[in-house]
Amino acid sequence: MLQSTHVTEAPHVTDHTATPIERACVPALDSILGKPLRVLDDGFVRAVDYMGNDQAVVQAARVSYGAGTKKVSQDRGLIRYLMRHHHTTPFEMCEIKLHVRVPMDTWRQWIRHRTANVNEYSTRYSLAIDSASSTAVDRWRQQAMSNRQGSDGHLCVQQGQHLTQREQQLQQLSQEVYQERIAQGVAREQARKDLPLSTYTEAYWKIDLHNLLHFLRLRMDSCAQQEIRAYAHTIGHQLVKSWCPLVWEAFMDYHVNSMSFSVAETHIIKSLAQNSSPRAIEHAQQLGWLGRKDNGTLKTHRERQECEQKLLQLGFAIPWR
Amino acid sequence: MLQSTHVTEAPHVTDHTATPIERACVPALDSILGKPLRVLDDGFVRAVDYMGNDQAVVQAARVSYGAGTKKVSQDRGLIRYLMRHHHTTPFEMCEIKLHVRVPMDTWRQWIRHRTANVNEYSTRYSLAIDSASSTAVDRWRQQAMSNRQGSDGHLCVQQGQHLTQREQQLQQLSQEVYQERIAQGVAREQARKDLPLSTYTEAYWKIDLHNLLHFLRLRMDSCAQQEIRAYAHTIGHQLVKSWCPLVWEAFMDYHVNSMSFSVAETHIIKSLAQNSSPRAIEHAQQLGWLGRKDNGTLKTHRERQECEQKLLQLGFAIPWR
Amino acid sequence: MLQSTHVTEAPHVTDHTATPIERACVPALDSILGKPLRVLDDGFVRAVDYMGNDQAVVQAARVSYGAGTKKVSQDRGLIRYLMRHHHTTPFEMCEIKLHVRVPMDTWRQWIRHRTANVNEYSTRYSLAIDSASSTAVDRWRQQAMSNRQGSDGHLCVQQGQHLTQREQQLQQLSQEVYQERIAQGVAREQARKDLPLSTYTEAYWKIDLHNLLHFLRLRMDSCAQQEIRAYAHTIGHQLVKSWCPLVWEAFMDYHVNSMSFSVAETHIIKSLAQNSSPRAIEHAQQLGWLGRKDNGTLKTHRERQECEQKLLQLGFAIPWR
Amino acid sequence: MLQSTHVTEAPHVTDHTATPIERACVPALDSILGKPLRVLDDGFVRAVDYMGNDQAVVQAARVSYGAGTKKVSQDRGLIRYLMRHHHTTPFEMCEIKLHVRVPMDTWRQWIRHRTANVNEYSTRYSLAIDSASSTAVDRWRQQAMSNRQGSDGHLCVQQGQHLTQREQQLQQLSQEVYQERIAQGVAREQARKDLPLSTYTEAYWKIDLHNLLHFLRLRMDSCAQQEIRAYAHTIGHQLVKSWCPLVWEAFMDYHVNSMSFSVAETHIIKSLAQNSSPRAIEHAQQLGWLGRKDNGTLKTHRERQECEQKLLQLGFAIPWR
Repeated sequence: MLQSTHVTEAPHVTDHTATPIERACVPALDSILGKPLRVLDDGFVRAVDYMGNDQAVVQAARVSYGAGTKKVSQDRGLIRYLMRHHHTTPFEMCEIKLHVRVPMDTWRQWIRHRTANVNEYSTRYSLAIDSASSTAVDRWRQQAMSNRQGSDGHLCVQQGQHLTQREQQLQQLSQEVYQERIAQGVAREQARKDLPLSTYTEAYWKIDLHNLLHFLRLRMDSCAQQEIRAYAHTIGHQLVKSWCPLVWEAFMDYHVNSMSFSVAETHIIKSLAQNSSPRAIEHAQQLGWLGRKDNGTLKTHRERQECEQKLLQLGFAIPWR
Repeated sequence: MLQSTHVTEAPHVTDHTATPIERACVPALDSILGKPLRVLDDGFVRAVDYMGNDQAVVQAARVSYGAGTKKVSQDRGLIRYLMRHHHTTPFEMCEIKLHVRVPMDTWRQWIRHRTANVNEYSTRYSLAIDSASSTAVDRWRQQAMSNRQGSDGHLCVQQGQHLTQREQQLQQLSQEVYQERIAQGVAREQARKDLPLSTYTEAYWKIDLHNLLHFLRLRMDSCAQQEIRAYAHTIGHQLVKSWCPLVWEAFMDYHVNSMSFSVAETHIIKSLAQNSSPRAIEHAQQLGWLGRKDNGTLKTHRERQECEQKLLQLGFAIPWR
Repeated sequence: MLQSTHVTEAPHVTDHTATPIERACVPALDSILGKPLRVLDDGFVRAVDYMGNDQAVVQAARVSYGAGTKKVSQDRGLIRYLMRHHHTTPFEMCEIKLHVRVPMDTWRQWIRHRTANVNEYSTRYSLAIDSASSTAVDRWRQQAMSNRQGSDGHLCVQQGQHLTQREQQLQQLSQEVYQERIAQGVAREQARKDLPLSTYTEAYWKIDLHNLLHFLRLRMDSCAQQEIRAYAHTIGHQLVKSWCPLVWEAFMDYHVNSMSFSVAETHIIKSLAQNSSPRAIEHAQQLGWLGRKDNGTLKTHRERQECEQKLLQLGFAIPWR
Repeated sequence: MLQSTHVTEAPHVTDHTATPIERACVPALDSILGKPLRVLDDGFVRAVDYMGNDQAVVQAARVSYGAGTKKVSQDRGLIRYLMRHHHTTPFEMCEIKLHVRVPMDTWRQWIRHRTANVNEYSTRYSLAIDSASSTAVDRWRQQAMSNRQGSDGHLCVQQGQHLTQREQQLQQLSQEVYQERIAQGVAREQARKDLPLSTYTEAYWKIDLHNLLHFLRLRMDSCAQQEIRAYAHTIGHQLVKSWCPLVWEAFMDYHVNSMSFSVAETHIIKSLAQNSSPRAIEHAQQLGWLGRKDNGTLKTHRERQECEQKLLQLGFAIPWR
């Protein structure tokens, strides 16, 4: 139906007159379907169902980008091209359904991703799950000073012993109070009101691959809280990597392990590339990055410090140090 | 892990330690997977992949609503309960991917449903599909007088012959101009600018079952334009019905073939149920429904007329006639 | 620019050449903007900003439905028509931003509505809000027997006194443990892990009017949990009603106080409307609604019982009783 | 209500007891509200309403990130921090409503952004807008050879004269056929079926700032089609820049004028930063980027060529040339 001098007929236009097709499948994922992968002390993630695979991404891209791309790119090349250039819609053609078990505290962060379909275990209909995440004596994390939202190192085991004991005491009382309410006939929807956020919940969570990768990029990041990062790593490195290995490789190369530079950083690197430290310093000066304290040391400046990190990572010396 | 006096352990909590599971599948849909179902003169719809089935809805509901529902309801009962009470999230656990071929004019309406994933054939990358929907001499529809957005009956064949001939003339000129532009080296993205809306396009369209039913409810409706209604009927009665027969049955019973009454209509029916026509008339009077023209006939009043239709459908006489 | 024999030029096409326009505003809402409306023991809702009003809905509808509707409908009639016929997009043209303070337990339900924009108070960055919802001695609700997810009546005050005292004990210990962790230098993100679900959180929550009404329809419903219902009532009856009174009226008439009948119920009402109880009974029989226990009484059948409720509400006698 | 040793009370917790607040407003945008900004030959964009401003972003961020950020960052710094680190939710707190007039061909691309609220002019209810975009004799663009989806330079005026004349002929016939159908009583919904894609349509389009910036990033890009790029530039540089100048500046610095490097590119830059061309070449070799034709010249390799572009932009010599 297509007529073109350059382009042979698009495969999607012709192949649908053929015999019935079969659903895309992925043996590597099939082999672990339903298997719970443990996360935290009593959580898990397991793949329950999925739709599509690497080839489904390619198929969707070909309907958009036409048969012409066929000659220059094998599947891997096309997937990498799509990922590099943020052509995101073909990745939406894959879908996965997980069954997860996760503390409510972590779930509160998880559920903020609005693009998924969700069915959560209901503590209105049923009794709350009788399990809460607990903390080993050597796993109490210290408040980070530099980063208001993070943690940095661990408290000593002596402190940890006390904290863990108090945690047990609190979780035990919470559980007693909950049981007591249920026994006295309090409605489940009200009895649950003081459950600790550490209580486990379960859910089916279904999401397309594009939005899953977005979730993973944010939640595998070192800024994400350790607990949700543990789930994200399991989902990414164990499930997505088995499911769509070419997509996963491209995602790691272009989005997870990539670096991004602001217009200011680009100017500074440009000066350094041409071996002109003075020009780089002048540029930083103009940006107001090089304010100094009375004692001559540089003032704290978050954006400059982020730039310094990147320069070091690229192997440049920091010109203003 | 659940402890309860009334409730046995929820199946989802225990069954995941078992041997690997298999993906939900539906033989009735598998047997037509990839098969194009013709719509209009040169369009089609075909299912390319899917995830989930009737049981996946039940499974998702059980994680939310708990094991307790198990004893009172078999799957069909539970699905019907969910549908009746607008518990929509379990239906989101099923997903289907279609490949469609549809005139751009119809696609403009289709694409307004924002909850789907879409990859459309690109006429920037590839030549436009060389096919446009055409109208048989007896299929020219007359503008409805009562309904500003609808059609009502057909023009006579004599008129139709002229109109169809002019349609051919226009489509032919459009095609010539497009070919000419391409031949002269005009960029495809610009060459396409005057293609008629009747030109066919193709797309992969992926959507969850809940949002698909919402689409079908609106687009199978008698107010929807005939062309998109044809696609909706094919998707509903041929694909969804094969895929999730229990869901489809519940959808038809509770949403497609159901009736809804405003608070005013409820009052009127209540009066009629108690054989009190005067009270019904009085109510309509108070609503301002019974204004009359100089000649004594009732003025046009859309809401009253809609109510009259419903009363007749229920077998009541219209009290104010 | 429009040419038509029947239709005068659409206002939106011409009026934009005029002098600068002003933003739609609503004095009734302006007068309470920023004012916290108390909900529960220490929660609130307050409107912080908004966009659009009743007229913005009309304006949007007119661009879709054209100038032709102008003659038949004033604003109220058009809004009611849109609401009655589920033409939902014009209602999306209004937007409101609320600042809410709500127990985390309630927030867990609230946040399931995915169409809103949300910024929640972060207990990673800042200390948790030092307030938890508490229960008065006479407000402990009893588990409903008929409805697995609801409550039904209250426990006696003697029981309540014990339960409230235990609630205080638990909330106090939770608070102590949290303070202790903070004092010992535990990272805030970890210190919060055992906070009770009754702890208050705050958020900015921004949503369009269509999706807000959907939220309210579900959360004002008698099946919704009392706590979120209290918030929904405040938002609906105090804020939305002030903001868009015509929309609110139509919403109440057509969606909140309306009734809906399945195809089966329609058949039964039809028989009753024609005074044919035997036909109604026959119909119920065929549906399998009239199974009887050994002692001759009707078996529990949820759908039949729902139908009975509706028949009584309409003033019909139940034919099979 | 907050208790903390380090943190002063969060402003959002206290300021809501004050006197009624006023809506955020932006005089610079108010002064052009409703004013159509011309785009293409007969299109426009005009802002009709808005909600929020730069300060609304800051306010939302402060509820999330707490009062602690207050001391280190003024508004500009906080906005830049949010933009740099992809903390996108505060930008969703601003909303704008545009009235646009755009050819259907361009609208087909525009509408693919699913996060907006839309009310489009209906050619079922009203007559189609009697205007189509036309092409000047010197504006016919040539198909790009290197980029399958783009254009590259213009055809000569002689060719252009012929093409423009044929365009007029086609648009005139289309218009005649449409008028004829309407005159004969064909339903508007069917009469429109062969309108050219160049026909103008109008819509209200409402979107939050985060999603608008996403739209602009994609549609201001040099890969976007010229027509939609013209709209995106007008929206960005004239409306958003007036509305939220600090957000706009940060968006340009960190997202529009920034550069991103894959893990492979990072390795190559690292080698060059340490003046080691051989290591850079070795790395490219391992990636398979340096395949050569029989005549010794490098084969086409899209990813290598993209990398070369970036190296030149940074002022590096290309090591393998």
